[in-house]
Amino acid sequence: MVSHEVPSGKRVFDWTIPREWNIRDAYVKNSKGERVVDFGKSNLHVLNYSIPIRKTVSLAALKEHLYSLPDYPDWIPYKTSYYKDNWGFCLSHNQLMRLEEGEYEVFIDSTLENGHLTYGEYSLRGQQTEEILVSCHACHPSLCNDNLSGVGLATFLAIFLSSIRRRYSYRFLFLPGTIGAITWLCLNEGKTSNIKHGLVITGVGDPGKITYKKSRLGNEEIDRAAAHVLRHSGEDFKIIDFSPYGYDERQYCSPGFNLPVGRLSRTRGGEYPEYHTSADNLDFVQSKFLGDSFEKTLAIIDILESNRTYVNLNAKCEPQMSKRGLDSESKATHLAMQWVLNFSDGSHSLLDIADRSNLRFDLIVSAAEMLLRKGLLREL
Amino acid sequence: MVSHEVPSGKRVFDWTIPREWNIRDAYVKNSKGERVVDFGKSNLHVLNYSIPIRKTVSLAALKEHLYSLPDYPDWIPYKTSYYKDNWGFCLSHNQLMRLEEGEYEVFIDSTLENGHLTYGEYSLRGQQTEEILVSCHACHPSLCNDNLSGVGLATFLAIFLSSIRRRYSYRFLFLPGTIGAITWLCLNEGKTSNIKHGLVITGVGDPGKITYKKSRLGNEEIDRAAAHVLRHSGEDFKIIDFSPYGYDERQYCSPGFNLPVGRLSRTRGGEYPEYHTSADNLDFVQSKFLGDSFEKTLAIIDILESNRTYVNLNAKCEPQMSKRGLDSESKATHLAMQWVLNFSDGSHSLLDIADRSNLRFDLIVSAAEMLLRKGLLREL
Amino acid sequence: MVSHEVPSGKRVFDWTIPREWNIRDAYVKNSKGERVVDFGKSNLHVLNYSIPIRKTVSLAALKEHLYSLPDYPDWIPYKTSYYKDNWGFCLSHNQLMRLEEGEYEVFIDSTLENGHLTYGEYSLRGQQTEEILVSCHACHPSLCNDNLSGVGLATFLAIFLSSIRRRYSYRFLFLPGTIGAITWLCLNEGKTSNIKHGLVITGVGDPGKITYKKSRLGNEEIDRAAAHVLRHSGEDFKIIDFSPYGYDERQYCSPGFNLPVGRLSRTRGGEYPEYHTSADNLDFVQSKFLGDSFEKTLAIIDILESNRTYVNLNAKCEPQMSKRGLDSESKATHLAMQWVLNFSDGSHSLLDIADRSNLRFDLIVSAAEMLLRKGLLREL
Repeated sequence: MVSHEVPSGKRVFDWTIPREWNIRDAYVKNSKGERVVDFGKSNLHVLNYSIPIRKTVSLAALKEHLYSLPDYPDWIPYKTSYYKDNWGFCLSHNQLMRLEEGEYEVFIDSTLENGHLTYGEYSLRGQQTEEILVSCHACHPSLCNDNLSGVGLATFLAIFLSSIRRRYSYRFLFLPGTIGAITWLCLNEGKTSNIKHGLVITGVGDPGKITYKKSRLGNEEIDRAAAHVLRHSGEDFKIIDFSPYGYDERQYCSPGFNLPVGRLSRTRGGEYPEYHTSADNLDFVQSKFLGDSFEKTLAIIDILESNRTYVNLNAKCEPQMSKRGLDSESKATHLAMQWVLNFSDGSHSLLDIADRSNLRFDLIVSAAEMLLRKGLLREL
Repeated sequence: MVSHEVPSGKRVFDWTIPREWNIRDAYVKNSKGERVVDFGKSNLHVLNYSIPIRKTVSLAALKEHLYSLPDYPDWIPYKTSYYKDNWGFCLSHNQLMRLEEGEYEVFIDSTLENGHLTYGEYSLRGQQTEEILVSCHACHPSLCNDNLSGVGLATFLAIFLSSIRRRYSYRFLFLPGTIGAITWLCLNEGKTSNIKHGLVITGVGDPGKITYKKSRLGNEEIDRAAAHVLRHSGEDFKIIDFSPYGYDERQYCSPGFNLPVGRLSRTRGGEYPEYHTSADNLDFVQSKFLGDSFEKTLAIIDILESNRTYVNLNAKCEPQMSKRGLDSESKATHLAMQWVLNFSDGSHSLLDIADRSNLRFDLIVSAAEMLLRKGLLREL
Repeated sequence: MVSHEVPSGKRVFDWTIPREWNIRDAYVKNSKGERVVDFGKSNLHVLNYSIPIRKTVSLAALKEHLYSLPDYPDWIPYKTSYYKDNWGFCLSHNQLMRLEEGEYEVFIDSTLENGHLTYGEYSLRGQQTEEILVSCHACHPSLCNDNLSGVGLATFLAIFLSSIRRRYSYRFLFLPGTIGAITWLCLNEGKTSNIKHGLVITGVGDPGKITYKKSRLGNEEIDRAAAHVLRHSGEDFKIIDFSPYGYDERQYCSPGFNLPVGRLSRTRGGEYPEYHTSADNLDFVQSKFLGDSFEKTLAIIDILESNRTYVNLNAKCEPQMSKRGLDSESKATHLAMQWVLNFSDGSHSLLDIADRSNLRFDLIVSAAEMLLRKGLLREL
């Protein structure tokens, strides 16, 4: 993993790398000197990107800088103020209700100064220089589903893929949402032509059904691979069309790049109440859902790795299977072989054949491998 | 408005302008000298295009020339005999039943002589020479929905459009059905290449749901504009495929012209009992339905006027909205801007983007205008 | 009808013509000398392609060579052993249950020697050299629906077509399944480019609903003709996509040939319990179903024979029907003429027009014939 640092002030397309925000401590103290809001207890207590402040204010003045969730009185919201200088505290609504009239000391020991934008990049070389991009946002330090789950899945995927033979090269990006993806694209524009398939991974640990959001063109190989996996999973799922809002697919699929990048999530961001609150925690994310997302991601990648286009070398009538010892296979394998032979005409990939036959991709692959061993196919 | 006169006998494509029919008076008198059928009471009482006649006939002989509607005994039917010399009277079935045995004097003071076919044409010049054609048939002197309603709507539309800035030029045609449209097309063949969009307006005042009939090619801009308006109206509607029967779209969409002309109606001609009877009157047509048809026509035209194709000048990643003051817009406007930016790639018009995003066209237009003002788009 | 003989050992593409199997007699005798299984009573009693044998075996040893259907204890199964030397008897499960312990004499007086593969071919010359292929398999000597019904239908079709004027030439093939079609294709490869349409006819006498299986490309004229006939039949039907299993369409539609050949059946092979048993007999096949299949086949062929593409010679506006005496036709005929005129633009055949108008093909044809007689159309 390489950690890249890009200095504040650098132009990246239409954007400028902002100042770097750091924070050491922050609190609200009541007149008795008690910390009624304490950054030490939760990172979420400070409005992210708050400017440094130290002053004494009345409760009324304080309240203009407090954020809570009346509908979920136990939860602390997560708030940011990226592009407007401001300060504030987030707290549970119960906490807010307990604040009594009086003077409060507010203190935020933060810095907002020239520094760096930091992102992580991890590359795995495969047989081909063509790449599969896996991107996740890592800008929410304390939220679990959004998007520690994505960071976790991508990390385990990188570990797993590093140990096996790879046809494609892989590039994993761990970056702050929006500005991070824009920065990477700006600094690596020349590399984007290698990206053959891509996935944005986000919100993959909650109990909702798996959701795949299509790439901008909508019929890319990644789109068909994901649809195949979901359709054959035997579980409920959702496939949604591309739209220019969401996560970093917005940048990868901006018209100037138009990369074949889809997104894998479970419940969509914003559609579960825990989203951007302290309730998006290790109780909300469960290993069985995270594991399921991991398996499905791997299954999608497995299709991309295995999908090839063959040409039937015995295209006139069926070949005689029995003389090659291919007649003792199961009925399902036999059918899969017939499908592969009939549609290996140079214009159908194995994934196309799996979809047209409504057979599982792995069955089609193993049928193709048998036929290849018998010299009945050649790769296009 | 220009009134054109085309002389009888002139060849127009496969057709010949017929003789002109005029009528001053007509009646059936019983033996007591009473007018039992009187043209003075309703224009519909005479079979249109009746030859002049004056004779005395028995009731039996008279009945061969009488037309009534047994299922609707109060209504007078509307009948014509364009291409066969004939005479006759139309009357309510109740009237017919009251006729007693005896001699009747029939008198039709008509002329059927060389004269002219008359049609009205009104042109409005816009910024472009490309035209929107609005055509209605004006050959039924006494029927209200079919098609005084169309004549009325087109007239109000012409008045309204004359007072505003127009991108397109407009041509309004008020002509007798079939032969009128054929005549115009024959005499103005050279102008048809300017017709970029067109609408036949007919039967737009009845209580039925609004119905749009597609052009022959079926996916013209006019077809998509009408579908957009109807889909977003929140009301019930019907979109039907082109077929070579109906009104003057039959001529505009004949294969030798194949113009992008659709048709706006409410209930289809022939599918309501009042059609072609005296009951197609000012009770049947109601201002709220006529007004609704007018509004929808205007909404369709508004789309055609506003639909443009832009190119995103910041196509690589999203532009930064906040530095341009575009971040304070409503969420809906923000989404619309993202859609416009992402799909303004030179191959999607604003209407395409509205349909793809399932957002209202006007929202997309206003988003595009904001972006245009900020220099983020240029027109293709 | 020409009977072709192709010698054993000849290579046909990837296959080799096998030895010829002939059988004179076969039985299983119990220790009392009674024939408990007797080939004389049913051809099905012998495993097809059994090698000759004469020996005495125990009941246990015999049972390893006996085939029955426990779920249908009265029926004799039909079994083959084409590619593995074996011998055996098929019998009803009741018969099997009655066999007592003891010694049995088994005798199969068969030969499996170099000989010939035999197939029948019948050609009818039409006005054009382009052909319609009708193929059926004739390798099951004693099964009725599969496929004596197909042989019968094809025979009657050949008789009927021989007596009428034909636009297309016809080729009827009566051949053993798989190897027969492969043989014909291999020996007649040069003729396949003449095949403009084709039908495999199989299982057309059972009570199931008519089923059409599309050609490999799926949108050939034969596919649209069959769909038109079935959709307008007023009866239930099934249209299924091409798949590379089934009958000889597997060979005609192998990627190296990819011929426009569909398949007409009723219930699919294998989906009725009588399939490949002695219950597939003259009780199962009924003349009304066979007749219905025949009529539908003829209706499909009638479309292919009559389908032509015309050009409207009066393409600008409608022609005037009344001056040609075409205005007195029925309303349906009038509509059909309007459809033919509007869409005879050189890119729509009569079948295209029938499908687009949702009118019956024969109505469209007769409308086109009237217009042709009046000089309003020319053939493309």
